[in-house]
Amino acid sequence: MESAEDRLIARYFRPLAADPGAFALADDAAVVTPPAGCDLVLKTDGVIVGVHCFPDDPPQGIGRKALRMNLSDLAAKGAKPIGFLLSVALAKEVDEAWLAAFAAGLGEDAKRYDCPLLGGDTDHTPGPTAVVVAAFGTVPHGAMVLRSTARAGDLIAVTGTIGDAALGVKLRQDTGLGAKWRLTRAMHDHLIDRYLLPQPRVALADAVLHEASAAMDVSDGLAGDLAKLCRASGVAAEIDVARVPLSEAARTALAADPALIETALTGGDDFEIVTTLAPDRLPRLRAAADAAGVAVTEIGRVQAGSGARFMHNGKALSFARPAYSHF
Amino acid sequence: MESAEDRLIARYFRPLAADPGAFALADDAAVVTPPAGCDLVLKTDGVIVGVHCFPDDPPQGIGRKALRMNLSDLAAKGAKPIGFLLSVALAKEVDEAWLAAFAAGLGEDAKRYDCPLLGGDTDHTPGPTAVVVAAFGTVPHGAMVLRSTARAGDLIAVTGTIGDAALGVKLRQDTGLGAKWRLTRAMHDHLIDRYLLPQPRVALADAVLHEASAAMDVSDGLAGDLAKLCRASGVAAEIDVARVPLSEAARTALAADPALIETALTGGDDFEIVTTLAPDRLPRLRAAADAAGVAVTEIGRVQAGSGARFMHNGKALSFARPAYSHF
Repeated sequence: MESAEDRLIARYFRPLAADPGAFALADDAAVVTPPAGCDLVLKTDGVIVGVHCFPDDPPQGIGRKALRMNLSDLAAKGAKPIGFLLSVALAKEVDEAWLAAFAAGLGEDAKRYDCPLLGGDTDHTPGPTAVVVAAFGTVPHGAMVLRSTARAGDLIAVTGTIGDAALGVKLRQDTGLGAKWRLTRAMHDHLIDRYLLPQPRVALADAVLHEASAAMDVSDGLAGDLAKLCRASGVAAEIDVARVPLSEAARTALAADPALIETALTGGDDFEIVTTLAPDRLPRLRAAADAAGVAVTEIGRVQAGSGARFMHNGKALSFARPAYSHF
Repeated sequence: MESAEDRLIARYFRPLAADPGAFALADDAAVVTPPAGCDLVLKTDGVIVGVHCFPDDPPQGIGRKALRMNLSDLAAKGAKPIGFLLSVALAKEVDEAWLAAFAAGLGEDAKRYDCPLLGGDTDHTPGPTAVVVAAFGTVPHGAMVLRSTARAGDLIAVTGTIGDAALGVKLRQDTGLGAKWRLTRAMHDHLIDRYLLPQPRVALADAVLHEASAAMDVSDGLAGDLAKLCRASGVAAEIDVARVPLSEAARTALAADPALIETALTGGDDFEIVTTLAPDRLPRLRAAADAAGVAVTEIGRVQAGSGARFMHNGKALSFARPAYSHF
């Protein structure tokens, strides 16, 4: 007497629900026991097919992207993931092969990030497929890293490289750009991959927790997100654009078309962490980043005042569209 | 330099985010501090307009329905609500008046149930408007009430009345039925209201926590949900259909069309709690229910075996469609 939904959940999602608090997805709700003295950090974000990804993006990546977007936020807050809830609305054209690939990708990441599926909800929709993740992490009580606590005199550092995903979206929209930008095949694939599959800096969460004065996830473009951090903290930021870390692929594209610097600094979907920290904390953050195999680059300074200035060849850049928004 | 999304969030959703852990929706994530010795109970469920409600249902009720569906699950697990995350995908035709009404309804319920908005995500979608809530509650460590712990010899009780929302949906689909069923205007409105606005039994969560051997939310029809509880617990249930609590409106409709008993027992959206309990626990559950102004009715017994039998005039009913599914 199992319904189609029950059967589908048992087949594709139960294998992801390894945590005993998920009750193998066979109860009404899940339960988690936060470690003593810990707070729970909560985040929700999602992917609507055709809005946040292309309709023909591989299904393996869509659930992973939804999960990783949330894990990126948890990492920027210094939180260690403990699990997630999943709400899936399936478009009419979704078949079992799509679903199997979707769940397999998601299951791989649930293992990789030690972040099991705790519960969820599955429906059909007359609209496009949409995936909402609510992800949970833990931090010691009162220790969540905020946007609002940067101090004048702090350094500003960023993980990984900036702008790859935004350039990847442009390539995805116009395949001729690869030749125009003189990209090798490997560079082309790097930019596309960075768009398809965020690399949340979960391995740096603990270092951010201990060393950052403030931090946030870079998901709407470095320029716009840093402006938000400055506003929340009541400070200004001055960024040396020459120091903003770019991948070899992005550097190659920018050499061919220098105007792409705006795309790199204001495009979305970086899923890196921008953090402020007292100058004497940088060596420890860098050591943790080295151990995790992730770059951390000092890109500027927090100052008294307001606004984030991006200094390029002695002048402050002004952007036509300072922050990316899917909205 | 605020985006349209920022402005909308500040205007309509920030007033709902009274908890300090929501940081006025101005950080990347929210934080909650579970009381010492407590587990967190987690649930997600949502409303897709046109699937779980009619496109012309009042916007005031849509967010409330999404929240209340989740609160109903938390109550059935014995959990006291502490907050929720909200993910909203807005259809193109949604205007600010819709949004203002949606948020106002939701805000009313966040106060009523002492369940503040902790964080969320707002997007536009080419599909229908969809609202996903992830709600959180607390229970003493290890005390979440499960589906799988009913014991032969337990009584079976249900809160409120059964079948109203399913009859309300039928009325909503065919306005001529009101006359056919000989409903007064008040009866008609009662059934429609029960469909539009679930009444989660949050006030009974504590009594369920202390008195129930097992419990679950009745949302896919009493027959199907009780069958799930029996399967999870490895027991059988025998229900005396004559004792299943019906509203005056439902009784009137069933008098006109006795076949509606199947609609009442298998229709969805009751959002009541079905609970099993040792017979000596019933008086305390009843006392708590009386204090909360909610009916609790004994409707049958847990037995050894399997399956839920609904006895009606000496025979077991068999249902064409035992459980409701939007899927």
